[in-house]
Amino acid sequence: MVVKKPGGLAGIEAGQTMISTVGKQGMGLTYRGYSIHDLASYGTFEETAYLLIYGKLPDEEQLANYKLKLAVSRQLPDPLAKLLELLPAASHPMEVLQTGCSALGTLEPETSTRTAADIADRLIALMGPMLLYWYHFHQSGARIQTQTNDDSIAGHFLHLLHGSPADELAVKVFDVSLILYAEHEFNASTFAARVTASTMSNYYSCIITGIGTLRGNLHGGANEAVMALISAFETPDDAEVGIMRMLADKKLIMGFGHRVYTVSDPRSDIIKNGSQKLSLWAADSQLYSISERVEQVMRREKSLFPNLDFYSATAYHFMDIPTSLFTPLFVLARTAGWTAHIIEQRSNNRLIRPIATYIGPDSLTWPTIDKRR
Amino acid sequence: MVVKKPGGLAGIEAGQTMISTVGKQGMGLTYRGYSIHDLASYGTFEETAYLLIYGKLPDEEQLANYKLKLAVSRQLPDPLAKLLELLPAASHPMEVLQTGCSALGTLEPETSTRTAADIADRLIALMGPMLLYWYHFHQSGARIQTQTNDDSIAGHFLHLLHGSPADELAVKVFDVSLILYAEHEFNASTFAARVTASTMSNYYSCIITGIGTLRGNLHGGANEAVMALISAFETPDDAEVGIMRMLADKKLIMGFGHRVYTVSDPRSDIIKNGSQKLSLWAADSQLYSISERVEQVMRREKSLFPNLDFYSATAYHFMDIPTSLFTPLFVLARTAGWTAHIIEQRSNNRLIRPIATYIGPDSLTWPTIDKRR
Repeated sequence: MVVKKPGGLAGIEAGQTMISTVGKQGMGLTYRGYSIHDLASYGTFEETAYLLIYGKLPDEEQLANYKLKLAVSRQLPDPLAKLLELLPAASHPMEVLQTGCSALGTLEPETSTRTAADIADRLIALMGPMLLYWYHFHQSGARIQTQTNDDSIAGHFLHLLHGSPADELAVKVFDVSLILYAEHEFNASTFAARVTASTMSNYYSCIITGIGTLRGNLHGGANEAVMALISAFETPDDAEVGIMRMLADKKLIMGFGHRVYTVSDPRSDIIKNGSQKLSLWAADSQLYSISERVEQVMRREKSLFPNLDFYSATAYHFMDIPTSLFTPLFVLARTAGWTAHIIEQRSNNRLIRPIATYIGPDSLTWPTIDKRR
Repeated sequence: MVVKKPGGLAGIEAGQTMISTVGKQGMGLTYRGYSIHDLASYGTFEETAYLLIYGKLPDEEQLANYKLKLAVSRQLPDPLAKLLELLPAASHPMEVLQTGCSALGTLEPETSTRTAADIADRLIALMGPMLLYWYHFHQSGARIQTQTNDDSIAGHFLHLLHGSPADELAVKVFDVSLILYAEHEFNASTFAARVTASTMSNYYSCIITGIGTLRGNLHGGANEAVMALISAFETPDDAEVGIMRMLADKKLIMGFGHRVYTVSDPRSDIIKNGSQKLSLWAADSQLYSISERVEQVMRREKSLFPNLDFYSATAYHFMDIPTSLFTPLFVLARTAGWTAHIIEQRSNNRLIRPIATYIGPDSLTWPTIDKRR
């Protein structure tokens, strides 16, 4: 592989994986051999999570059992609910997930019978309830019940968020977004989770590393940054002027380009299609057109393509999801991919410990305290 | 650098650092140019933390101010105390620190005026109180006061743990152990923290990544594993028989050898000296002799040298520190080093995102659910 700029381990092979391919010939994405297009067209997030965590697509009975397992895992333990009430209303939702997952590790620790895969299923089912219990408690004082009759993670989340069953189109696009966000090879959060796993640490610690790493604007935080960018414009023409000015000022425009993809992000067209449908459904007059204009300007001026985060932002917005919950949804989805990588790392472990090039001072003589300045 | 075995980024240069040198010619350790021997002989942990976090040794006034800043940071916020009471008595103490630090991030978030360095100082002062508040509450129901008149982190911790001011020798050796544990270049937890920092995530997330990664037995968890090993033997002769049997069974003996050091661990003789003094002070009849015998057998049979974790275990044991708190003490100390690396990563950031070699299945055709098995 060619290293474009030094540093950041760009183009450096840090290990082997059987889980996904990212960016062969600068494009393309498969999960365990299945193309992202097939997964998004014919699959569900539950099938995708099962595929990633258990290594194969479920048959009918397995899928029914898996969905039942997820459905009965939606209940918050009482001490966890109390703890979520103690976290301030102004907390960053990513910190709520981080603290909640860490606390759950003390309540339901990993054991030989409660395996990494079991905890993954529990977290995938419980992250929405954790987040939304905290959210509603601090919005209105309500202590919500987290059980519903919804058949899917996507339907369940939207139902808990809005307090009523969601529209079929919103559930479908949301489900697709979770499929697209579920896995992406050695991205920074997954790689960091594998470093944690490589010391033989416990499963929860690996996931918490993933959450903390995903939060940054150069990773999962990008979808929130995109929303902030787009919503600052009133019209497509405004957006054109604004983006041209930002480019002239050499400001970073979030949601474009990718370290590994060089031609296009194969997930972008799929979520763009969902965002477009939702914009009609939500009777949006401007936001979708603004985002399309931003895409045109970026292609024309910088030859850059939108990545998954760009149209995810508007898709989530049209579902009436608060912007501060965008990155936590990425966490929910990516927990499936992180888990696959944690299990893979453990199955053939070697401590991940690189070295550094030292560029600091040569040996210094110790100065007594009166000789320091 | 020569890569001994493939994988784990062994011998791969993952970036530059001005903070420390590890293992030049297979030995030697400096923090910002000062040898570990000078730091342990003439310095204190507070000077070491200041050196790492602020880049230079403090003069008299700076040191006095720094110690004052640490002393006034020992108070637990009330919601954090309540939260610690909610965590079960059977929690792993590393999870207590992980959850506590994550919750503190919601109560005292990073801002332009509350910088990474400020939070580092707060955490270094507060980790002991957090841990010991939880510990005493679940041991005896006591809600301890966390302020004391102790002049040092080391004295403060031992005082809170035992409920009375500690002996001078114990404080001294404890302080030295914190100096030795404070920093170690691109070890797994520091490297993972840098990956988290590289996405532009917040400071707390980087530290929480460090804690979760340090926990594993192949990293910080080793000092606890050493204690479990040594305390299983009754006499030095028992130990000899036991270690020979473990070696014959190809079992991993914790506390020996190192990925980067090939000749010796320069920290080991320093802590061994402290452990020996404490064994006399604590009127230990066997444990120190047992550990020396284990060292002899490992040198004779495997040509392996003890690393820092080996004699730290007995040193902490002689101070009457419960084994389950050994790794959290490593966290307290290493927070200084992690912070230096997080600040350094941010100062010249590039996303850390390697690639993987794909060894999974070629493209698979999507099977309808009735065709799966």
